[in-house]
Formats: sequence, C-alpha cells, structure tokens
Amino acid sequence: MTLPVNLVDMMDTDSKLDTNKQFQTTPLPESLSFSGQPYSVSVLKVGYCFYQTDGTFRADGTITLITGPRTILVDTGGPWDRDFLLQTLKERGLEPGDIHVVVGTHGHSDHVGNLSLFPAAVIIVGYDVSEGDTYRPNKLAEGHAYRIDEYVSVVPSPGHTGQDVSVQVKGTSAGTVLVAGDLFECCSDEDSWRDLSMNTAIQEVSRQEALRTADVIIPGHGPPFRVFRN
Amino acid sequence: MTLPVNLVDMMDTDSKLDTNKQFQTTPLPESLSFSGQPYSVSVLKVGYCFYQTDGTFRADGTITLITGPRTILVDTGGPWDRDFLLQTLKERGLEPGDIHVVVGTHGHSDHVGNLSLFPAAVIIVGYDVSEGDTYRPNKLAEGHAYRIDEYVSVVPSPGHTGQDVSVQVKGTSAGTVLVAGDLFECCSDEDSWRDLSMNTAIQEVSRQEALRTADVIIPGHGPPFRVFRN
Repeated sequence: MTLPVNLVDMMDTDSKLDTNKQFQTTPLPESLSFSGQPYSVSVLKVGYCFYQTDGTFRADGTITLITGPRTILVDTGGPWDRDFLLQTLKERGLEPGDIHVVVGTHGHSDHVGNLSLFPAAVIIVGYDVSEGDTYRPNKLAEGHAYRIDEYVSVVPSPGHTGQDVSVQVKGTSAGTVLVAGDLFECCSDEDSWRDLSMNTAIQEVSRQEALRTADVIIPGHGPPFRVFRN
Repeated sequence: MTLPVNLVDMMDTDSKLDTNKQFQTTPLPESLSFSGQPYSVSVLKVGYCFYQTDGTFRADGTITLITGPRTILVDTGGPWDRDFLLQTLKERGLEPGDIHVVVGTHGHSDHVGNLSLFPAAVIIVGYDVSEGDTYRPNKLAEGHAYRIDEYVSVVPSPGHTGQDVSVQVKGTSAGTVLVAGDLFECCSDEDSWRDLSMNTAIQEVSRQEALRTADVIIPGHGPPFRVFRN
C-alpha cells in the first residue's frame, strides 16, 4: 500500500488493456480456504483499505497460509498484526518455527510487518531470497519463477512496485490459486489499482498473466475472487 | 539489497554524472557516533555485503539510532538481527516501546526485518507513514520532506528502489548527517551501486542532492563517510 504516486509516473508508459473482454471475475467473500492435495490455501486475514474523513486511510494486507509438504506464509500484515498472527498460527497448531518459507509479496509495511517472527525461515521479499543473512541467486528479476516444488512457485508480478512477486499454488479443489499481493487490490479494482501503481503498463502485463493462469486470485486488500475465462 | 536487475532497466534513462569533480568522500570506519544538540546519531550495526564463492552473497543493512527529543531507529536489519537489536537497545537503556519513530529506508528484507518489534511506533517505510493501521497523507512521493521536527526530516531519495527515503539530522558535531539506506552502498561504491539500482538516473539525482547537503553520510552497507565539497 502506498498513496497515489505522481513522481513514479515518470517511468510509466500507457497501455490499458480491457481485461473485461477476456476475463470475468466474481468475489468469493465466504471462501477463505481452498483445500487440495498436496497443498491447501487458507486466508488468515482479509486485507482492507478504506479512506477516512480526516484524510488518513486505514489499510492492512491480506495474510495467507499455504500448508502441505512445506508450510508457507504469504505476507505477514503490518507490525500491529503480530499478536493476531501468533494466535492464529497457534490455533492451527503452528509455532513460528514451523513456517518453512515466508513470502513478502512486496516491501510495504502492511505486508512485511512481521518478518522478525520467522528468523529461521527462508525469507522471500520481492526478488530477494534469503536464509539468515545469506542471499541466494535467483532469476525473478529476469522474469523466471522461483520454484518451491512441483506445486508451489513464487512468480514475478511487478508493477505495483518494481519487484512484486505472487505465489502460485497448483492442484487445489478450486484449481490454481494465485496469492497476488497488491497486483490486485480487490476483485473490482479497475478504478483504483492504477493510482497505487508504480508502473501501470508493467502491472497490466502482470495482471493479464495472472488472469490467464489462475482460477482463484487472493488480492492484497480484499477477499479472494474467482476468474472465468471466456 | 537486491541482486542486479535487468528487467527494471526498462524504466531507466542514462545520466552518469561525475561526482568526483564536485565532491570528495573519505570513510570514517572508526566514527560510529556523532553527538549533537539536540540530536545525536549512533550506528548500532555497520551493514555489509560480500559475495561468496558458492554464488550466494551475505548482506545486512546498517542499523542507526537517533536520540534526542524523539528516539528514532533508521533501518532494523534483517529478521536475524532481532536479538542483537533488542540487546543493543537494552544496553542503551531502551526498550522497544521507547522508540517513537522507526524508518525503513526501503522495503528490502535486510532493512525492514524487525518492524514487528515496534508496533506502537510511527512506522515510515519508503513513502508510507503509518501509526497502527492508519496511514497518514504525506508528500514524499511529490519530492517533499516529512519533517519530524526542526532538526530531523525524512527526505525522499529514490532510485535504489522506487520509493527510498533517507533521514537527515542537522546540528551534530559533525554537521548534517544523512542516514541514507542504499542510496549509497558504501563510501566507494562507484563500481557497484548502478548494478543494484532500479533507476540509475533517478538515483544519481538523489545521490547528488545528498552529497550537496550532507557532511556525513551513513550508507546501507558500509561505515559512515565524510563529504568534502570543492
């Protein structure tokens, strides 16, 4: 989450594709869990963003847990979510040390606020993959996925910032689920996402690829939504 | 810290100014504290970055404490620094709740790894200013400073990422100190910073402004250095 940015529009070329012609989307406000083999996906907290009359706005990023052969947390919410996150994991029988991989889809404070709970995990924030202070080479910046295994991949999806990633989970009961961070604000964000984008042309390409390949998208500031391809 | 990026060079125009003609810089490896009135600046951990023979690299971001009427932490290191950070603050008589403002100069994991230790602080990460989940409007994205008070300001310094900030402290015994994150990797980074930059032209402008206004610069991955203007 970052307030509308004028400065970075310097970097922007214009290309507004009409996604509605090729794709239809429907919100799934009641569906926060997608079971599957070998991986299931659960939204622990639905992100939000709303403006207040005093000029401030309140926002938090969606927090998602992926369970299976590896336990993967995608986005950690803001620092204020610390106790919520610990409690919610505990209710699922998990301690922070049980999380193998923590992904911050991008480096905004409402998404990477609780990395310090997971010092033993592989930490992926944007295009950086680290274990402790050791950073592993990867090809996210060249547009290539970072595979966790056959079913789960971290895929580059830049635009909202310069180095966003999403997490793709194949084989759930709902098909392929994409945990997308702020690539999508929410299901119906056509009027808002460009104002929050660092590069709308690049983000549009990332959004098209997401809509082309995912059956369910978990956005950064709203409930999951279903994608129907015409 | 992010590995050299090719993709984002799409956004890049070219403008390599020769900083050496106007400015000279000298490392200050023994000077980690700059006392002053009303604010003093102390480097708690000197950041580093070095490649290893197995293709990985080890990196951590510089952690800096500013004390005075407000207590301000600039960058928090990686998640692995949690215990170090708590212990170092304790040795200075500080609990996490004593920190009024935490600044993450940009959203990379070696700089924003410990935000969750400070849920009660004002959190500034890049261009976002928040207190709890309430985000305050500001003009960092339009190029304007966010003033903490008469002596301390958060100033936009983009380029390494799209939304970097630095913290400027006036009135120390060494003059104006700029805690600069990865605007500068270290004192002699002419051969390296461009490879780590999301937009070298914009970063060059930010670097010039820093060299024009600061007497001491605290970089993201090395000890402080002194700036001499010709």
